[in-house]
Amino acid sequence: MAIHNRRIVLAARPSGVVTSDCFRLEDQQLPDLEEGQLLVRNHYMSLDPYMRGRMDDAKSYAAPQALGQTMQGATVGIVEQSRNAQFAVGDHVVGMFGWQHYGVSDGKAIAKIDASKIPMSAFVGVMGMPGATAWYGLNRIIDPKPGETIVVSAASGAVGAVVGQLAKFKGCRVVGVAGGAEKCRVVVDAFGFDACIDYKAGRLYEDLAAATPDGIDGNFENVGGPVLDAVLRRMNGFGRIAVCGLIAGYNGEDIALKSTRSILVNRLKVQGFIISEHMTDWPKAHAEIGQAIIDGKLHYKETIAQGLEQAPEAFIGLLKGKNLGKQLVKLV
Amino acid sequence: MAIHNRRIVLAARPSGVVTSDCFRLEDQQLPDLEEGQLLVRNHYMSLDPYMRGRMDDAKSYAAPQALGQTMQGATVGIVEQSRNAQFAVGDHVVGMFGWQHYGVSDGKAIAKIDASKIPMSAFVGVMGMPGATAWYGLNRIIDPKPGETIVVSAASGAVGAVVGQLAKFKGCRVVGVAGGAEKCRVVVDAFGFDACIDYKAGRLYEDLAAATPDGIDGNFENVGGPVLDAVLRRMNGFGRIAVCGLIAGYNGEDIALKSTRSILVNRLKVQGFIISEHMTDWPKAHAEIGQAIIDGKLHYKETIAQGLEQAPEAFIGLLKGKNLGKQLVKLV
Repeated sequence: MAIHNRRIVLAARPSGVVTSDCFRLEDQQLPDLEEGQLLVRNHYMSLDPYMRGRMDDAKSYAAPQALGQTMQGATVGIVEQSRNAQFAVGDHVVGMFGWQHYGVSDGKAIAKIDASKIPMSAFVGVMGMPGATAWYGLNRIIDPKPGETIVVSAASGAVGAVVGQLAKFKGCRVVGVAGGAEKCRVVVDAFGFDACIDYKAGRLYEDLAAATPDGIDGNFENVGGPVLDAVLRRMNGFGRIAVCGLIAGYNGEDIALKSTRSILVNRLKVQGFIISEHMTDWPKAHAEIGQAIIDGKLHYKETIAQGLEQAPEAFIGLLKGKNLGKQLVKLV
Repeated sequence: MAIHNRRIVLAARPSGVVTSDCFRLEDQQLPDLEEGQLLVRNHYMSLDPYMRGRMDDAKSYAAPQALGQTMQGATVGIVEQSRNAQFAVGDHVVGMFGWQHYGVSDGKAIAKIDASKIPMSAFVGVMGMPGATAWYGLNRIIDPKPGETIVVSAASGAVGAVVGQLAKFKGCRVVGVAGGAEKCRVVVDAFGFDACIDYKAGRLYEDLAAATPDGIDGNFENVGGPVLDAVLRRMNGFGRIAVCGLIAGYNGEDIALKSTRSILVNRLKVQGFIISEHMTDWPKAHAEIGQAIIDGKLHYKETIAQGLEQAPEAFIGLLKGKNLGKQLVKLV
């Protein structure tokens, strides 16, 4: 009973901006399961900014995505066949099956989820890597105190929206930075930030200063470049900056920082992190986020592309900031 | 029995480079001591890069140096008169009496020292603020492990020379960065660094790469700008950068950083600090450094200007890197 699989592989590395030429759709027949294996039909796949870094053949924290191989990434789906005693047909599981319809696993590196109270798609978003990322950077690096001012860039994104809401729970003043009036409206109205700066409006520093009258104590940075430079100029003494992403420079753009003096003058701690290196914190993060979702206190948005074939375009849009909230591809 | 004092005051704030016009020599008569006071004849005064920052009227970690007031700074001297039961004539004391021959104190904010085994001048150098700075940044921020590679900028200076020697005690490979072949020679021959890069030789990154074949795990940064940028490009995963000074930018020069991506990719911790906020660590730092001096294991160099009148020129030279080791002015 052979399975017809469809997948997207990395066809060519980008030079600068990612284009559709970088990807290639392929069909393949999967062999029958061996003893111990199971077959998962992926229902949603995650698109994330970190994937851009792996498309380059450059030194980074993760090995480069191999040419000709399935694009890597998180997926959530349902077991369709199982020759593994730990998994039954119908089980909901998260895995790293990448950009394809099906995944075959030996039962390792996948996990069952309870999708009865929280929708399946959330498990590659707020209940997945992005949620853990938000929780870790906020709690382990910024460690915010009530009354402090926290600035979050890419505030409408999958990570930023969670950072801001968790910081609000802790009694902070939370200011977002996002691209465009609509995103800023969502950040304030749907996610409950105190203010949101539209970095495309051309008054980045002035608007940030007006929204942070008491300066900035913590910054969750997803963007870098001019956004981070403006934040540096507003930092208070002993401020903490969690560097989660530098999407402003992912295509090779200049992300130089001018206001480095602030690191010394304000005794800042600037710390980069990669969430996959802090797996022990994931359960705590997801327990807290999951309960807040069930309680109706934490909200999230999804931008969903329909069908595997739309993944390249959706990914290119993600890198340009066209998504609102978590960017997913719906496969079933 | 009035005392004739001579002092140097801040006459004007610099615009960019410090010039001798910024200072003015003044003579004054000091009133007789009141009950509880004591009079100290300053024997050495310290010149330090941080003084440059205070000459500007800009937001910084310390209040600006007031115009028309005695230039602030650390001093070491001997009690000449005392109406304070805690201090006797002949006691050696460190204080913050600034650029002048005499200091009057109520006994607070000064401390007796034991100059019997370590020369008096060291107590405003390796046994003073610079030594504590070296110890704190290395131990509390970089926290080096045996076998790691530590890079120290301004390596021949009062702070850098101590950082490197303490790191060698811990079994690290230690590479200095200094300006000029002579300084580099001293850093290696007198202070025992494994290598020293002459940043003036025009091959900063290439020379640094050659001297750090296993990358860089820790950086004690006194300079900033292109030196720090080159270091960022060589940092290993989980590297730590203690930002102690950014002397490259003290006159308003551009100290932008291009290689900010390294903070994310290598999960770096970049942390600024001000040693005056960590006084509880000073005794531990000075106990360790003092014992190493007495044991003949830790070495230091001094550049000594003769006489108060030479202080402005010596300070201007310090900012240009003309000193080797601790810059002092000998007053007696």
